[in-house]
Amino acid sequence: MTDAPVRQASLREHNLGLVLRQAANAARPPSRADIAAATSLTRATVSALVDDLIAGGLLTEVEPAPRAGAGRPAAGLVLSASGPAGLGLEINVDYLSACVVDLAGTVRHREVRHADQRPGRPAEVLAEVAELAAAARAHAERQGLTLAGAALAVPGLVTPTGLVRLAPNLGWRDVDVPAGLAQGLAGSGPRSEATRRDGAGPLGRSAALDGLPVTVDNEANLAALGELHAGPAGPASFLYVSGEIGIGAGIVLHGTLFRGARGWSGELGHMAVRPDGPACRCGARGCLEQYAGQEAILRAAGTDDLLPQAKAGNPAVLDALSAAGAALGVAVAGVVNLLDVEAVVLGGIYAPLAPWLCPAVEAEIRQRVLTAGWSPVDIRPSVLGADAAVVGAAGSVVRTIHDHPARWLTRV
Amino acid sequence: MTDAPVRQASLREHNLGLVLRQAANAARPPSRADIAAATSLTRATVSALVDDLIAGGLLTEVEPAPRAGAGRPAAGLVLSASGPAGLGLEINVDYLSACVVDLAGTVRHREVRHADQRPGRPAEVLAEVAELAAAARAHAERQGLTLAGAALAVPGLVTPTGLVRLAPNLGWRDVDVPAGLAQGLAGSGPRSEATRRDGAGPLGRSAALDGLPVTVDNEANLAALGELHAGPAGPASFLYVSGEIGIGAGIVLHGTLFRGARGWSGELGHMAVRPDGPACRCGARGCLEQYAGQEAILRAAGTDDLLPQAKAGNPAVLDALSAAGAALGVAVAGVVNLLDVEAVVLGGIYAPLAPWLCPAVEAEIRQRVLTAGWSPVDIRPSVLGADAAVVGAAGSVVRTIHDHPARWLTRV
Repeated sequence: MTDAPVRQASLREHNLGLVLRQAANAARPPSRADIAAATSLTRATVSALVDDLIAGGLLTEVEPAPRAGAGRPAAGLVLSASGPAGLGLEINVDYLSACVVDLAGTVRHREVRHADQRPGRPAEVLAEVAELAAAARAHAERQGLTLAGAALAVPGLVTPTGLVRLAPNLGWRDVDVPAGLAQGLAGSGPRSEATRRDGAGPLGRSAALDGLPVTVDNEANLAALGELHAGPAGPASFLYVSGEIGIGAGIVLHGTLFRGARGWSGELGHMAVRPDGPACRCGARGCLEQYAGQEAILRAAGTDDLLPQAKAGNPAVLDALSAAGAALGVAVAGVVNLLDVEAVVLGGIYAPLAPWLCPAVEAEIRQRVLTAGWSPVDIRPSVLGADAAVVGAAGSVVRTIHDHPARWLTRV
Repeated sequence: MTDAPVRQASLREHNLGLVLRQAANAARPPSRADIAAATSLTRATVSALVDDLIAGGLLTEVEPAPRAGAGRPAAGLVLSASGPAGLGLEINVDYLSACVVDLAGTVRHREVRHADQRPGRPAEVLAEVAELAAAARAHAERQGLTLAGAALAVPGLVTPTGLVRLAPNLGWRDVDVPAGLAQGLAGSGPRSEATRRDGAGPLGRSAALDGLPVTVDNEANLAALGELHAGPAGPASFLYVSGEIGIGAGIVLHGTLFRGARGWSGELGHMAVRPDGPACRCGARGCLEQYAGQEAILRAAGTDDLLPQAKAGNPAVLDALSAAGAALGVAVAGVVNLLDVEAVVLGGIYAPLAPWLCPAVEAEIRQRVLTAGWSPVDIRPSVLGADAAVVGAAGSVVRTIHDHPARWLTRV
């Protein structure tokens, strides 16, 4: 989204976005006059656009702070806390989750169900996700929010139409997620003719799921997008590493998510640490997942309670985390040598474990990255923590409204 | 370079480029009328622009092919073979080279001096490069060409001002290349006040080297750019692998060279194949260079004549190439898993050896790349062969004229 000049035809659309983002990004609620000054639009134009954004439920006026001196202070404008919101959904190997994020980025609802998803058929898993979605929608509506869309994070390779080509750790291959979700929701939530008709076939990029546009994306990609927008001034090029039972990555280059030539980028978990190492679920040997995936760490640690045991100084746990960090460091050093990213963000289970993983990762980077001596790489835990993918998913819905408010105004 | 509408102020500049590229990219020499039809510019505008490009030495009129039927056919326009040209220079560990490429992309002069550059001090190496440059310039001028600039390829990490921060295989660290070149040329070629004055300090992005703008860049980056422009319709995202004594890479993503956040991308040679493998010149262990670098291959093969011995079926040579291919395949499979590039281009010494390297590389990709089953990766030798870096360097100079002919016209 650039704020460059545009043709007359799309001028109003452009300026609506400009005004909305002024309110979104300002340090304190700007007045109409503040926005006019910042955008070089006239007061009258700004006022008309603000009125449209208020009527559409995107902006709200708030009382100004009392001010010393003469004159009544102008009302400030903030993003609406009761307007459209985004629904984030996540399928991972050992949990399902849902969350609702409002226009201002606040998480308004969150539910996680921990359970191994591998025994279930995809249809069963998707039916439970649909249940979570229906519950989240009900919660959102009770808080006066209207869901603008949903994004579902999946730990696998996803096509633009939402087909999961492969999710090795779930054991999924060629699963049509929008169709499965629509069927699931038809069984659990309010149903309509439109749902059943749309749910019958391939649904395109956004599936009409009970009237709700749904996109499906790789979980590390959504988490990386979440991370990109979570901090006020993060680095422009970073590797987001999602540590779960599988290990994925989202690659942000010059402020943009890089999806690869055909959408299959980020399979960090299958970079070889030792080419003749242990067999991996993907069919190859010695993949990073076999050294630093959640199950490899738990096996080496001999306990499921990694965080409390690490805090307690359990030597087996510390050794396991150090070994996982070293393997992760070998792979990450390769990525830094290749891509020269400024930062590596540790997400998923790695986020809380970062204090014990980082020293080994940093040691490998110091040893292996050619430019490490003069061009430091920041290794840090994810700002969004274990929720990065599901919050990133919900945030991706909200960001389409920030980027294109006119589309939302047309819908209401 | 997009051919999109632009402001009035730069319209002529824009249209000059548009017209020049019509002549550059057409299947056969277009007439002024052809260019007017293709660009939607008026005949009068095209004629005026063509006259300027002819006067500036960028275009030439050629006799039309005899045509049946009535009417005299119009003259065709081709890129001038006696206009500006680019000088490419390359420093590698075991050779120095220079070449001149004219506006149409034809190599008009080429010189390679094989010798180990490691014993010499940087100043001595740069003095010899300056000699090569002076000789190339003399050759170009005898052919009626005028050098528009020079680009020097170096197997190391280069800053935008031409400082080589690190070239591990040359043993260089913090070498100011433009300054060294200018001193070298002052000793070997025609000198001027400007040369000596400009050569005394840091020279900025383009150094005035005897009046010639010089840029310095990583050799794999220049080779990847050469490869990108060499084929008429190459893949938009590929990894160019430069196999020499060191191994470098140029990463082209969506048709653009990706240089990394700080300019240090592409250090494929220092990705770990086996984390506890043999010590590398960089200070780490088990780097790809230790398995697939030229010296490792020669050592394993027991001969310096790789190509003839491979053709003769020498088993030790075939084994050495297969082992190198397997190590290269492990690293390249990691890159494909990470970046989802459509093709891997084998350059440098790998180009002629590709028939013996490819099977092992492809086997690793089949085994290790998650998407290999449905999203094939093309492994192929460089179109430009062993000359990719030096030809790519010269081509990068020529392309700045294709992109911005007005700048050249202002200079003449």
